[in-house]
Amino acid sequence: MKREGALNGIKVLDLSRVLAGPFCTMMLADMGAEVIKIEVPGKGDDSRNFGPFVNGESGYYMNINRNKKGITLNLKGKGKDLFLEMVKKADMVVENYRPGVMEKLGIGYEELKKVNPGIIYGAVSGFGHYGPYTLRPGYDVIGQASSGLMSVTGWPDGGPTRIGTAMADSLAGYSLTIGLLAALQYRNQTGIGQKVDIGMMDAGIASMQIIYPIYTMGGRIPERIGNRYESNYPTDTFRTKDGMIVIGAANDKLWQKLCEVMGRKELAEDERYDRNPKRVEHYREIKPIIEAWTLENSSKEAMEQLLKAGVPASPINNLEQVVHDPHANAREMFVHVEHPVAGDTLLNGSQFKMTVTDPVIDTPALLLGQHNGEVYEELLGLDSSRLEELREQGVI
Amino acid sequence: MKREGALNGIKVLDLSRVLAGPFCTMMLADMGAEVIKIEVPGKGDDSRNFGPFVNGESGYYMNINRNKKGITLNLKGKGKDLFLEMVKKADMVVENYRPGVMEKLGIGYEELKKVNPGIIYGAVSGFGHYGPYTLRPGYDVIGQASSGLMSVTGWPDGGPTRIGTAMADSLAGYSLTIGLLAALQYRNQTGIGQKVDIGMMDAGIASMQIIYPIYTMGGRIPERIGNRYESNYPTDTFRTKDGMIVIGAANDKLWQKLCEVMGRKELAEDERYDRNPKRVEHYREIKPIIEAWTLENSSKEAMEQLLKAGVPASPINNLEQVVHDPHANAREMFVHVEHPVAGDTLLNGSQFKMTVTDPVIDTPALLLGQHNGEVYEELLGLDSSRLEELREQGVI
Repeated sequence: MKREGALNGIKVLDLSRVLAGPFCTMMLADMGAEVIKIEVPGKGDDSRNFGPFVNGESGYYMNINRNKKGITLNLKGKGKDLFLEMVKKADMVVENYRPGVMEKLGIGYEELKKVNPGIIYGAVSGFGHYGPYTLRPGYDVIGQASSGLMSVTGWPDGGPTRIGTAMADSLAGYSLTIGLLAALQYRNQTGIGQKVDIGMMDAGIASMQIIYPIYTMGGRIPERIGNRYESNYPTDTFRTKDGMIVIGAANDKLWQKLCEVMGRKELAEDERYDRNPKRVEHYREIKPIIEAWTLENSSKEAMEQLLKAGVPASPINNLEQVVHDPHANAREMFVHVEHPVAGDTLLNGSQFKMTVTDPVIDTPALLLGQHNGEVYEELLGLDSSRLEELREQGVI
Repeated sequence: MKREGALNGIKVLDLSRVLAGPFCTMMLADMGAEVIKIEVPGKGDDSRNFGPFVNGESGYYMNINRNKKGITLNLKGKGKDLFLEMVKKADMVVENYRPGVMEKLGIGYEELKKVNPGIIYGAVSGFGHYGPYTLRPGYDVIGQASSGLMSVTGWPDGGPTRIGTAMADSLAGYSLTIGLLAALQYRNQTGIGQKVDIGMMDAGIASMQIIYPIYTMGGRIPERIGNRYESNYPTDTFRTKDGMIVIGAANDKLWQKLCEVMGRKELAEDERYDRNPKRVEHYREIKPIIEAWTLENSSKEAMEQLLKAGVPASPINNLEQVVHDPHANAREMFVHVEHPVAGDTLLNGSQFKMTVTDPVIDTPALLLGQHNGEVYEELLGLDSSRLEELREQGVI
């Protein structure tokens, strides 16, 4: 029995591979859409070969391809016609090929629209489907570098620094999901489908909405400033007796509370530091004052006093600490799913906490071509002898 | 005349301030929703005081509050009743108070549901609306530290590093937008509204979907590895004669092309480096080989040769370079909007490129209470004398 999901009844044909596209369709699947992942016969998504491996199965792949169905299809030759037949029955098509590849295969948006005018077509690529760099290949690092993200991350005396996960892919995946759902709302109202085109560079730029105005409206190029923030202080990292914590005393009231916690009430009244803009200016003096206090405490001791007083503070968790964190677990941010080959696996949970249609993560990632029988019969009425024929011809 | 947008006809009451919430409602507004921003009379959103300033108007605020309408309302006392009346006519309510604040005001989700069972309620906070840390205050830095993002960003010999923009806020804003649009789809099908609850820590965790499996399925805690990637090499930064570029030769074919560009064909056949896992292992040897070549070229020269051969490469742009980049401009990632006080302003564009309902950014951010007359008359039928009364009482 299919669980109740916000996107129940929505059918998605997913040609995407590796990350930005599959992350988008993962969210759709977690919310109850029927996502049919289409992979190259005999080979599959490249990310099936990305570690870590559990009994030979890719942890990378298993994490972001749960809750999907999977078929194999060679999009050249006969496969193209089968695909077009399926498009007639689908609500969305998602792909992250380089721009032009779908057209070369004869299944670009204009072709799909002919067989299904209501189809919602989602494309994600390094630089999007138009503009001078459209044909440039895009990987996460290209998105992080081209959008400006790397230029502002890191330390004044260090070089541009990559965000330590594939953040440009994540941002593009979120953007595509939003575009698709907005297009779905529009189609509900009008019956009209459309194409949503997301570029990683664009998604990176749009995600720096508080930093760009410093240049576009303030005329100053934002630089790498380490762990402090442009707009308030003290919001920074501070060493403790046994490690490091972050404190975010981002406004005047929180500064007063922080001074009280440190037993330095006189500082709260010090005219050099009493207003946020002054603290931003004098951050070099303020940091050692606060660190003198944090260094007298363990991270745990400092955290306890700060949180008790209502001052925002957090340990700087590594991933092991997050996985065992009681809050992350209370919010089911890690979920056990039994995989037929890998056995028990611990997957990322969903951040979408919804009172009626809470996402459910209960179905392991597909094996290559696992649902060929089911999907081809249901969608195209192909029986097992016809499937055998297609298999022999290398079509599926 | 209202332009055609994907979310035309959707009315959003927006109580949110500063960043995660307003970024979400900015996307909804860019896509044509009618977003009514509700601010505290005489004071407004805190971010009206965040620089840079243009003729006294906040660039921060103007960038993320375009395309919205704005009213003032004191939610205590009489204001509460006016708000509940407006909820009856709205599709969505968005807020990013600390959990519990809406309940204290008597306008928590359970109360709103009573007056409008179809209402879609979106909440974003540091740790979400349940779980042991729910009442902890959350700022971007708390989200970045608690989710593990800082632990993997930066250099092996350096400390945990903040992403140089408010990324946890951005990720939470994207997540809330997705949750709201999915809930809208569900309501279209069933008439049933619901609450969507997003925590910044959760959004950070979910955005690291390729890094968590290294621990959850591989048993190793991912650490800071600078600009290279866990899963492939060479994908990294390389110094040139006059700067630095990124190269993303993430698979064997691209490695071969890169070797050819460098005039080092023999390397492509070298058994130490021919397969990606071996290159990941031997990255320390490969980096200086590539850098020997890049250092002989200017960034421009290296880029030209690499892109011609189809090897992914990018300059590491600073924000000034991006703003003047021909591709970013061809994709309208920066848009001029005339503001009544600030004059001509350059705002971030939208990354959602849609063939039928392309977002339009044409209306400047609201002045405090700018649409009191229009909105209160249209939604609640209040005439100007009644508004004057409410103003004198400090309600609006």
